[in-house]
Amino acid sequence: MITITAPDSVPDFAKGLVRDLRARWALEEAGLEYQVKLVTSDERLGPAYRVQQPFSQVPAYQDDDVMLFESGAIVLHVGRQSAALLPTDQAGQARATAWVFAALNSVEPFIMSLVAVDLFAQQEPWAKPSRPYWEGMVKKRLSDLSERLAGRDWLEDRFTAGDLMMATVLRIPRHTDLVTSDRTLAPYLARCEARPAFQKALADQMASFK
Amino acid sequence: MITITAPDSVPDFAKGLVRDLRARWALEEAGLEYQVKLVTSDERLGPAYRVQQPFSQVPAYQDDDVMLFESGAIVLHVGRQSAALLPTDQAGQARATAWVFAALNSVEPFIMSLVAVDLFAQQEPWAKPSRPYWEGMVKKRLSDLSERLAGRDWLEDRFTAGDLMMATVLRIPRHTDLVTSDRTLAPYLARCEARPAFQKALADQMASFK
Repeated sequence: MITITAPDSVPDFAKGLVRDLRARWALEEAGLEYQVKLVTSDERLGPAYRVQQPFSQVPAYQDDDVMLFESGAIVLHVGRQSAALLPTDQAGQARATAWVFAALNSVEPFIMSLVAVDLFAQQEPWAKPSRPYWEGMVKKRLSDLSERLAGRDWLEDRFTAGDLMMATVLRIPRHTDLVTSDRTLAPYLARCEARPAFQKALADQMASFK
Repeated sequence: MITITAPDSVPDFAKGLVRDLRARWALEEAGLEYQVKLVTSDERLGPAYRVQQPFSQVPAYQDDDVMLFESGAIVLHVGRQSAALLPTDQAGQARATAWVFAALNSVEPFIMSLVAVDLFAQQEPWAKPSRPYWEGMVKKRLSDLSERLAGRDWLEDRFTAGDLMMATVLRIPRHTDLVTSDRTLAPYLARCEARPAFQKALADQMASFK
């Protein structure tokens, strides 16, 4: 049986964004059965959990063969068990993998820095003055991505784990119009979010918070 | 034949850190022959290069089967061709992959934010005041990593692509003592950097700058 972890509660601004959504969505696309173990923030900081997840984050993943962490690794591991997420040929898998990394290393980090100055550290005197710098970095990467997606439905010639991961990253700056104002990225994100597997994953995540 | 791209020149502070080092190192560990195509910053911004690399970054990778980008995806793709980088069993590959993602999504982003305030944006009035926040984030993740590595030679029970990627990330804050002052991380990084494949990759990168 596959088990993933998810937080038992988060602040409102994080609901619908917590990274277990990525694992849930991938498992729904793949049609694999799984259970969710809700963990408190105290549990996440404890030594037992940190054997599974060295950074005290969610999600952690366990199946009969392997204990895993990092949403990128979990989505790829699930993807290898289902053609719904990854092409079966090695070149196609590698291309989809490139987009998973692009989402997590070339786009998300700048978005998270903007989230830091807008939300986590908003009361700091340097937050607002530094905002234009971080917003500029996000805009540059979103503009590159928008250019790539122009005229396409998906990042490659079909939906892959790369689109799944990119969509969850594009959801993060929902407190801004950076994605909704882009004539390519907004419909791309809507296309990803319209997938029944996403809708099920999101509803399940929202229902799990106490 | 495998070809990767690398910049023809970078500022001094980036020498030895540019991401083509990751691809070079992986290819050296795997014992695969490859050639390096040096590209100017103008070329990287041009439409031909952006077909290969949508964010105008280095490295891009091409072999007889696939055109790839993102150093994480390139290292995993090379890793699948050599037991030197990835265990041959699926669970072992997934564990190593988790560490590649941990390096690139849980550790590097905070280090790069610190590099931004220390180097790229150092003249901005908000840079110094925001430094303690970003340094705190880096310290937290390095402390988690140090705890995991205590008493171990490698992140798993042998050297993998995960160590390769983590080492290249730990090299980045070399303008600080954040890694060198840690009694676990400093010898871990030294162990990674002592590998002949790393030494060859680094020497080749340094020799390629004009």
